[in-house]
Amino acid sequence: MGVLDFWFDFASTYSYPAAMRIGPLAATAGVTVRFRPFLLGPIFQAQGWDSSPFNLYPAKGRYMWRDLERLCADLDLPFRRPQPFPQPSLLAARVALVALAERWGEEFCRAVFRAEFGEGSRIDDDATMARLLAPFGADPGEVLASARSEPIKARLRADTQAAQEHGIFGPPSFVTADGELFWGNDRLEHALAWATRLGSRGRN
Amino acid sequence: MGVLDFWFDFASTYSYPAAMRIGPLAATAGVTVRFRPFLLGPIFQAQGWDSSPFNLYPAKGRYMWRDLERLCADLDLPFRRPQPFPQPSLLAARVALVALAERWGEEFCRAVFRAEFGEGSRIDDDATMARLLAPFGADPGEVLASARSEPIKARLRADTQAAQEHGIFGPPSFVTADGELFWGNDRLEHALAWATRLGSRGRN
Repeated sequence: MGVLDFWFDFASTYSYPAAMRIGPLAATAGVTVRFRPFLLGPIFQAQGWDSSPFNLYPAKGRYMWRDLERLCADLDLPFRRPQPFPQPSLLAARVALVALAERWGEEFCRAVFRAEFGEGSRIDDDATMARLLAPFGADPGEVLASARSEPIKARLRADTQAAQEHGIFGPPSFVTADGELFWGNDRLEHALAWATRLGSRGRN
Repeated sequence: MGVLDFWFDFASTYSYPAAMRIGPLAATAGVTVRFRPFLLGPIFQAQGWDSSPFNLYPAKGRYMWRDLERLCADLDLPFRRPQPFPQPSLLAARVALVALAERWGEEFCRAVFRAEFGEGSRIDDDATMARLLAPFGADPGEVLASARSEPIKARLRADTQAAQEHGIFGPPSFVTADGELFWGNDRLEHALAWATRLGSRGRN
């Protein structure tokens, strides 16, 4: 069976439709997906950017918001622009690393994206995290404490460095077992096709 | 019938597959396409870039070349990286404006892209332009003289400004009659679908 790493930053706009689409598409393609949150900030800083390129380059930003609105309409996804943009995603990424050790981790990640880009909520405070964790029967206090523990902090740093070493420069990105990189929500289908071919080659 | 403006710069890598794909896809969708060459240089300069972002941001550049190679393989298009990159595209854009007044204009544009990204040829000299014009029975000397005439120079400047006014920040871009902007080879299908819907609404 093919495997695909789905690298995303919760602050990333196009990671929202990708997170919503990847489950059913991967199931159809027979590909196992691993959700890999990381932080784009250090990677952007390495490129000399102190904010999202969508803020730094206004024409690009205007286009992106309109494009995302159209995409969400096509996919029947709610859309609301979060303020401020980008949302600080450090806390959500750490909480997600804790959550992804549980069966409901991916569903939690989708809940974060839905809150942020579907409802326009902030995602950088404990109250939102607690509200989003509650439906899964997790103890928000415990999860938040784990999220702030040294092993999780170190894990996120290591994962962010791993993303950079894979050549990732923007989210969402998809990496197959042989290291092929696919960038952007609109490359999801290509990435899954590559992972499927690779998986069936491995089986023979 | 729907109409779609296809804005491209001959220096732009992803404009190559877009130029090769747009004809048959537009015919199937029942959309009339207008080829609109423009110059990205002034638009990049307005964003503070003195070269292609694929050169300025090496991780992005490495990814783009690999992605383009994969895309061309999927589309059965020859691919060879031109040196230097980006190719100065001023001459080709002016020649294309002359050519696009003829029935063979679009085919000439595809020939330029094929020479540049399929054979790795330079496109910034008279000899290449003459070689690419020859199969169409045009007199290369006459076409090149027209290409350097004041009206064509002014037209390219005006078109480049029009592209910027449409919000275009990178090629290829597609603009429908109601001003919707779609950016990137991978948005071609969306742009055609939009143009088709618009065209059929206009008919009712």
